[in-house]
Order: sequence, then C-alpha cells, then structure tokens
Amino acid sequence: MRQLQGIAVSEGVAVAKAYRLAEPDLSISEHDGIEPSAEKQRFHDAIANAKTQLEKIRDYAITMVGEEEAEIFSAHLLVLQDPDFHVAIEGEIDQHVQAEKALQKIAQQFIDLFNQMDNEYMRQRAADIEDVSRRILACLLGKVLPDVSQIDEEVVLIAYDLSPSVTAQLNKQFVKGFITTIGGRTSHTAILARTLQIPAVVGVKEAETIEHGEIVLLDGATGQLIINPSEETQLEAKERMTAQAEREKQLQQFVDKESVTADGAHIELAANIGSVQDVEAVLKVGADGVGLFRTEFLYMDSTSLPTEEQQFELYKAVLEKMNNKPVVVRTLDIGGDKHLEYWQLPKEENPFLGQRAIRLSLANEDIFITQLRALLRASQYGNLKIMFPMIATMQELHQAKALLQRQHDALVAEGVAIGKYEVGIMIEVPSAAILADVLAREVDFFSIGTNDLIQYTFASDRMNEATSYLYEPFHPAIIRLIDNVASSARKHGIWAGMCGEMAGEPLALPVLLALGLDELSMSSSAVLRTRENLSKLNKKALQQQVDKLLACDSAEQVKDWAQQVYN
Amino acid sequence: MRQLQGIAVSEGVAVAKAYRLAEPDLSISEHDGIEPSAEKQRFHDAIANAKTQLEKIRDYAITMVGEEEAEIFSAHLLVLQDPDFHVAIEGEIDQHVQAEKALQKIAQQFIDLFNQMDNEYMRQRAADIEDVSRRILACLLGKVLPDVSQIDEEVVLIAYDLSPSVTAQLNKQFVKGFITTIGGRTSHTAILARTLQIPAVVGVKEAETIEHGEIVLLDGATGQLIINPSEETQLEAKERMTAQAEREKQLQQFVDKESVTADGAHIELAANIGSVQDVEAVLKVGADGVGLFRTEFLYMDSTSLPTEEQQFELYKAVLEKMNNKPVVVRTLDIGGDKHLEYWQLPKEENPFLGQRAIRLSLANEDIFITQLRALLRASQYGNLKIMFPMIATMQELHQAKALLQRQHDALVAEGVAIGKYEVGIMIEVPSAAILADVLAREVDFFSIGTNDLIQYTFASDRMNEATSYLYEPFHPAIIRLIDNVASSARKHGIWAGMCGEMAGEPLALPVLLALGLDELSMSSSAVLRTRENLSKLNKKALQQQVDKLLACDSAEQVKDWAQQVYN
Repeated sequence: MRQLQGIAVSEGVAVAKAYRLAEPDLSISEHDGIEPSAEKQRFHDAIANAKTQLEKIRDYAITMVGEEEAEIFSAHLLVLQDPDFHVAIEGEIDQHVQAEKALQKIAQQFIDLFNQMDNEYMRQRAADIEDVSRRILACLLGKVLPDVSQIDEEVVLIAYDLSPSVTAQLNKQFVKGFITTIGGRTSHTAILARTLQIPAVVGVKEAETIEHGEIVLLDGATGQLIINPSEETQLEAKERMTAQAEREKQLQQFVDKESVTADGAHIELAANIGSVQDVEAVLKVGADGVGLFRTEFLYMDSTSLPTEEQQFELYKAVLEKMNNKPVVVRTLDIGGDKHLEYWQLPKEENPFLGQRAIRLSLANEDIFITQLRALLRASQYGNLKIMFPMIATMQELHQAKALLQRQHDALVAEGVAIGKYEVGIMIEVPSAAILADVLAREVDFFSIGTNDLIQYTFASDRMNEATSYLYEPFHPAIIRLIDNVASSARKHGIWAGMCGEMAGEPLALPVLLALGLDELSMSSSAVLRTRENLSKLNKKALQQQVDKLLACDSAEQVKDWAQQVYN
Repeated sequence: MRQLQGIAVSEGVAVAKAYRLAEPDLSISEHDGIEPSAEKQRFHDAIANAKTQLEKIRDYAITMVGEEEAEIFSAHLLVLQDPDFHVAIEGEIDQHVQAEKALQKIAQQFIDLFNQMDNEYMRQRAADIEDVSRRILACLLGKVLPDVSQIDEEVVLIAYDLSPSVTAQLNKQFVKGFITTIGGRTSHTAILARTLQIPAVVGVKEAETIEHGEIVLLDGATGQLIINPSEETQLEAKERMTAQAEREKQLQQFVDKESVTADGAHIELAANIGSVQDVEAVLKVGADGVGLFRTEFLYMDSTSLPTEEQQFELYKAVLEKMNNKPVVVRTLDIGGDKHLEYWQLPKEENPFLGQRAIRLSLANEDIFITQLRALLRASQYGNLKIMFPMIATMQELHQAKALLQRQHDALVAEGVAIGKYEVGIMIEVPSAAILADVLAREVDFFSIGTNDLIQYTFASDRMNEATSYLYEPFHPAIIRLIDNVASSARKHGIWAGMCGEMAGEPLALPVLLALGLDELSMSSSAVLRTRENLSKLNKKALQQQVDKLLACDSAEQVKDWAQQVYN
C-alpha cells in the first residue's frame, strides 16, 4: 500500500485494476533511395487512413460526450487536411526525405510555433497537432494506436498522457477513473473527464511506477492515489462511494422543492451555464433560473465571430428551454486570460488589468452591436436579463446602455418584436462595488462576480501561486463591499445576486443571507446541496446578527461567525 | 514657420539655432587576408582607446551631473571589458573575420538577446551595448565620435538619438534644448535631460527635416516644436521664458515659509526622493521632510544586493542631511514593472497583481532582514519612519512588524543603539483602504499611494493605453476611499498622508484638505507651488463643505467642487 499525489481534476472515488495503456513503438527506421512521388503517395494514403479513423472517433464521441465536446475532432480533421501542412511536408519529401521524417520535422516546427505563443489556447493547438501527427505517423508505420473502446472490465487507466482522441473513446461503464503523468486542470483531457464525470487525477509524476493489474484507489477530489490499498481501505473507499451515491439520492428530494429558508424567505437559486447543452443539467436539478450565461464560450468554440443569426438562435433556444424562468446573459467577456483564435488582441503587460469584457465591447462597437441585436431579438422567447461585465464607472454603463437603446430603437423601426428584458451589471471591479449606490439608479439588478472582485480588491492574481494566499472570500474587505452592494440595491428597489464561486460555498451561505442577497448563481451540481442548506437556515435570525458579522476584523472571525450558525 | 510634434520629456522653453550632430561614417570597408593575431591586436588597441575616452567622459559627467547619473559610464566600462564579449569576438577573428565585422556580429547577438527580453531594464542594457560597440567601432576605423562639449554658442541639438555618453557631455551653458528622432519618456536620455534641466522633446519623427542653423522653438512641456518661428512667436516664447523665471523667483519667497493654510492649519509638505543626491533639491525648496524615500533605486542601481553596511550608510546620510526632519523610508518595492538584473524573479502573467513589494520581502526574509537591520541601525541619526508598501491584509502587516521587532530585539542584544522610529504602511491596495479602521490600530501612520490605489480600484493598468481612460484620481470611488483612510486615522490618533502623484496636483489640494490629510509628499519641484496654493486656502471652510464633496456622483462633479474653491 503506497501513496501518490497528483492534481485533482475530476471529482469522485474509484477503485479498480490499473490498466496501462499500451503505446505502440513509433520509432522510425531509416530508408535510403527515397523516390519522392511514391513517398508522397504513402503520405497521402496515411492521411486518408487517419481521416477514416478520426471520423469514426468523432462519431463515437458525439454519442458519448455530445456534439460540442466532440468538436475537437472536427478541429483535428481540419489540421489533418491543412494544405499548408501538406505542402510543407511534400516540400521535404521532394528533397528525398522519407515521409515519416518529413512529417516529424514539419509537425515539430508547427508545434514549436504554437507552443512559443504565450497563450493557453495556442498551446492547446500545439497539442492537437501532436495528436494528429502521431496518428499519421502510426498509419505510415502500419501501427495501431491504442483503442480504449475495447476495454471490457472495470479499470483505472494509467497513461503518460491521454490524447483527446483516446479520452473521447473511453467507455464509462468500464473505465472508472484515469491517471496521467502530465497535464493540468485546464488541459482538454481534464475538461473531458469532468464532462464524462469520470474521476481523474493528472500530473502524477510517478504514474509510471504503477504496474498493470495493481489495484488503484483514486480520489478525484483530493488528487490522492493509493496503490494496492488494504482490504480495509478499499472497503472504506467503497463505503464513501456508497455514501456519496446515497447523499446524491437524498438531495434528489430537493429537485422540486422551493428555494426557501426555514423561516420562509425565498432566495433565487440559479445555475451558471456556458452553452445550450448545459441547460439540461440546470433543469435536472430544478434550479430557479440561469444566473449567468457565459456567452464567451460561443465565441471561443467558433472559428470566426458568430453571426447575429447564430447568436439569436442560441439565445432563443436557451430562453425557450428555460421556459420563462429568468436567464441572465452576460455579454461578451473575453480578454484577460480568455482569447479568440480569430481575433488577435494586442499583448498586454497585465491582461487582468487590461482591455477585457465591456471595455473591449465598447472599443469594438460592431461586434458588441451584433450581440445586442441578437439578444434583443431573442427577448420575446423568455425571461431575459442582459448583464454587462466589468463595469467600472457610470460612464461605461451609460455608453453600454445607450448602445443597447439604439439597437432597441433600430429593431423597433425595422418592425421586429421585442419582449420585456432587464438590464444589469456584474459588480466585479472595486470601484463599482464602492459606487453601488450611484450605479443602482441606472440598472435593474446587480450580480457580484466574486472571482474578479476578490482578486482586484487584494491586487492579487489568483492564478499566481505566489500571491494566491491573498485570495480570501471571507475577508472583511470583501464582506463590506458585498454589504454595500446589497444595501444599495435594497435602497433603490433593485435585486442583487452573486455569480462567483463564493455563491456555491456552503460556509458562505449564511453570510450572504445575512447581507441580504436576493439571488445566488452557482454550478448546477451545487444547487441541490445549497437548497438543502437554505432550508435549515433562518434568514431573520441571521440578519439580526449582521452587525456582528460586519464588525469582524479578519477572515477567521467571519468564518467563525458563519460556522456557528451551522453548529 | 512650421510645426512638429514630439514627446515632451523635460520641461522648459528654448529658442536657439539648430545644431545637427555630425555623425561620422562608420561603414566598414572589407579587407581580405585577415591575420588573426594582428587583427586581435587591432581589436585590443581599440578597446584600450575606447576605455580612455569613456573614462574621460565619465569624469566629465561626474562634475556635470553627479556621481549617480555618471554611474552609467562605469556600466559601459564593464561592458567594454566584459571577458565573454572579448572571447566571442576573438573567436570570430580566429575564423579570419575582420575585427570590425566580428565586433558587429557579436554585438548584434548580445543586443538581440537583451532586446528580446520583455523588460525595460534589459532593453536599456541593449542600448548600452550598442553605445559601447559604436565607440569601439569608431576606434577601429580611426573615426572620432561627436564631442558636444566643443559647442560654444547657444544651440538646440538635433540628433537621431543621443547616446548616454553624448548626453553626459552636454554643456548646459550652450545647449539650450535637444530634439531626437526616437526615444520615449523613460529612456535614459530623457531622464538625464530632466536631471540636467535641459528642455527636451524626443520621438520627433520628422526631426531630420530640421536643417543645421534653422531657428528652433522647443517647448519641453507640450512637446511642440516651431521651426523658423516668426519674430512675434520668438518674442512670445521669450516672454514666457521670462515669466517662467519670474514665477520661479516669486515662489522662492515660500522656501522659508511655514506650510500653513490661510486659516493657520499646518499641513506637512514633504518631498519624494530616490537617492541621497535628491536630498539637495528637497533642502533647496525647504520641504518639511521626505515623505517617500524609494529605496528600490538603491537596489536597481547596484549590480548585486546592497549589503547591510551600504544601506546603513545611505540611510544614515539621508537622515543626517535632513537634520531631524521626518524621513519616511519605504522598504523594498520591486516586482511589478521594476526588476533587478541580479535577482531574476519568475515571469508573471499579471506582474501588477503579482509578488511585488512587501509580498516579495515576506517571501525572501533574508533580503528583507538586511534592509530592516540597516534601517534600525540608522534610526538614531534622525527622524525615521519605516513604511511597508502594498500591505493588503492585517496578516501581512503582522508578519512584517514581527520581523522588524525580531531585528530590533536582536540588535539591542548585540548592544547596538537604536533611536526612536515610527512604523507605517502605504495604502495602495483597495482592501487596505477599505479596512483602514482595523489597520489603524497597528501602525503609526498611513501614506496613500494613489498611483497603485487608482489602478487597482478600477482594475485598470494605467500603462495600458487602451484602459488609461479609467485612471481617474477625482472619481468618487477614490474620494470615498481616501475619506475612509483619513477618518480612520483621525479616529485612532495617527497621521495620514499621501505620496502618489495626486498629492502634488493643484486641483487635488482643496479635496485632500477637506478630507483631512495631514501630510502630502510630492516631487521637490512641486513643493513651493503647493505651499503657495496652501496659503490661499481655508481648511475650516473646506471641511464645512466635505459633505457636498462626498455626495459627488462623478469625477466631473468632484473637479467642479475643487475648481470653485480657487475661483
């Protein structure tokens, strides 16, 4: 029984035999006397072969993980057929270079190029090229890449890395978890694991010491691995798994319940989504609405700016599926750490303090107008609330509202029917939280974005390990800002919610109730747990203790205040 | 009469004949049959020659601009004698490459290397190598570089660029201003121009169209140039120059005056310094103290970490020169956009939100302790106030104070005499401004750093052109934060000052008086003007209007409030 530690990327516990992914030997044996035209034919045959394989994997992935997640294979197919890539490789072959070597050289050049770009998206592109080139190389060498869809007993998969094409073939029935030597939380593999809800731990440096057939216990919440666990440990883990399943069953009773406190106060419990597909999960947990629709994914998953028509269809679909429950749509929020491949923004010294979100939309009115028109046209299909991200000053709010009003008037003039909708802002810049009383006069609602608000209030990039100790949602500075936002909203008769990570934290719930927020939006998976917690809390009693909360000097005191409520 | 526009880098107006810097032809004529040993001898002769020239320039610069500014030539001398540089060039010569070509190739490699580094400091290093290599090349070719010390009539110097070595030879008596085609506000040339107080405009793309001998009118405050100005324009400019001189003479009467308002309230008017040399200017204007001693320059101008002894001597010298007037010493504030050549910090995605200032000091206790010990030892030589930068939370303050106390106790145990000193913090992170009432219990003073406080409050990098519109000192969000800091300080009986750029702005003065700040620290050149403005304002009357100020909704309203006071 020994322990290893990795990066937890997909929650859940798994116990099963280790299955080491057998990697074919793709080393190249050198040939002499290359005849370019025959060699090019070999290359084209390999491409055709790889294309057939990839199309099959894509179709399998669509049924397994859905259309959107399978999109990556369409991207792979594009890489595979990229004329620049072919021309470069054929150019090498013309110099009497063996096809395998030509492929390797050119692929490496492309990979290096993308890796050099200091941008997560581009590095992902490099990974895609690597994946595709590996497949072409295997075809050239007549080798078969591992096909995990053949696994027919319960296993935990062990690999150096899982290429997206392999991950997409995982059969959840048998693959109970996976472990890779490399990778991080935002790698495509990690994202797919969460989508498939397969427990996964990545970045396990000693993963290769795990032997094929050894029993592995994997905890996808903590990143802990136990190899050859004792019977007792296995039993414990299985009990935890059962308890987890039990707990989930228990929470099911809250699906149809109202979101109310013990003393009958209604709090809107909404969910965050990034696509129309995510609405399924929202409906499944019976959330009261969508509190944050991150429209940037629509832009990020596209290969060019989405048209007004495409956006209209998407917003309409979400509104209709939500069946008149509120849907808060946040306008485009890129820049910072979010990039679009087809819209190169200038490199910034401090992207988090740069031209992102509404700043970018106001500086690029055409792009913004397309989104506003699509939203306005969709407004008659449900309960739409338009939200502007990163508003820092009244001036920005005025600009955004004026632009929206102009589109509204233009659409009316065109004879387009427009439904009712609200207009609100994210509160995520300290200046907006401080000036909430002034901003409240001009909007229908506030939604506090804690992730950014916290990092700006402490001047600390939460992605930066050296300063992440300053990321503290319970710090009195944050509590005071939330209080100012909530009480400003009350004073002006508008509603105030929260859509940052803090909104789904159990310990934060009594704090946010005491401060008087009206709505909390979180990941769908947190809604039922929160609704259950809500049912145990007494809002009036909490609000009677708000002075004590506001007098706290430190995050520890705030947490103690919240903890005692649950005790 | 035609106009050109450039970047204003050094204030003042100048009218004089254009003097185009004659650049020698440094093109290389190729030689065949290179004999390496003879060629190396030529190279070494050139180095020796360049060394003599540079030493002469350095000595001249020391008398003209002072030891610190002349430091760059010591850096040049180090580059000139860098063994890596020599070995690389000799390696080329061994391949039968002509010395000039070898020099050019290797110098370019070094320049490219430093230029690639995304860092102003390194780019300056590249400029230094370029300057030195040019001198060696001239020596190899038997050419003489321009010697501006020979100019003996009033001129405005026109050049593509002024190398530091040329700038340092400028004789202020004759060179009334200068204009360059390239350059920016932070280039070494610009900094030297401000030190020498020579009006200068750089980045004038059409500078080469100015002919030798044409009359040039240069305004170093606006960046405007007028070529062949009319008699009338020249007269006007001369009148402005006279008025300027007159105004400066007028302000001189305030040198010995107390810093008091019309109704007799004393406000401490202090000055910011970066070195012991800067104390001269502070004393010349009769400032009430040093409100901000930026110790990072001591680290940045050094080639290795300054020792405790070096620091002690420096702090002692500043304290003694200030003769018991208060000296607020800010502990090391690097990171962000400030780098040390000899201490490579990890590259950060958002350096302004990264491990800078106190965060870096707390993570590198040894370096911090050296500085704290030097400060404590110097405390008995004057009126010392130790200030920690970028404090975001009470936890950081506790850590810093505990570390200081440990050094204090250790020094006492060593038998070292320690004087009285105060301990305070910069308020430049929003969380600290919001929690000022809590932090006030643990310090002797606050000093608001507006530059950072503003950029964090609006989540806007003020160096980023696309978001600089959000940098607004008069915004109500900032006014409210300053108010919270000042009133928290009053409540706890400590003093509160300001050392950001806002402190020296005339329009900000009534605002800061109304909010009740006790001290303002600014550049020495702003002290007398502020003292004069102070004498015209009535603090009680302003404080009676503070409610109106705090009720302002926008920066425009705040400015109107301030403007009407002067009307």
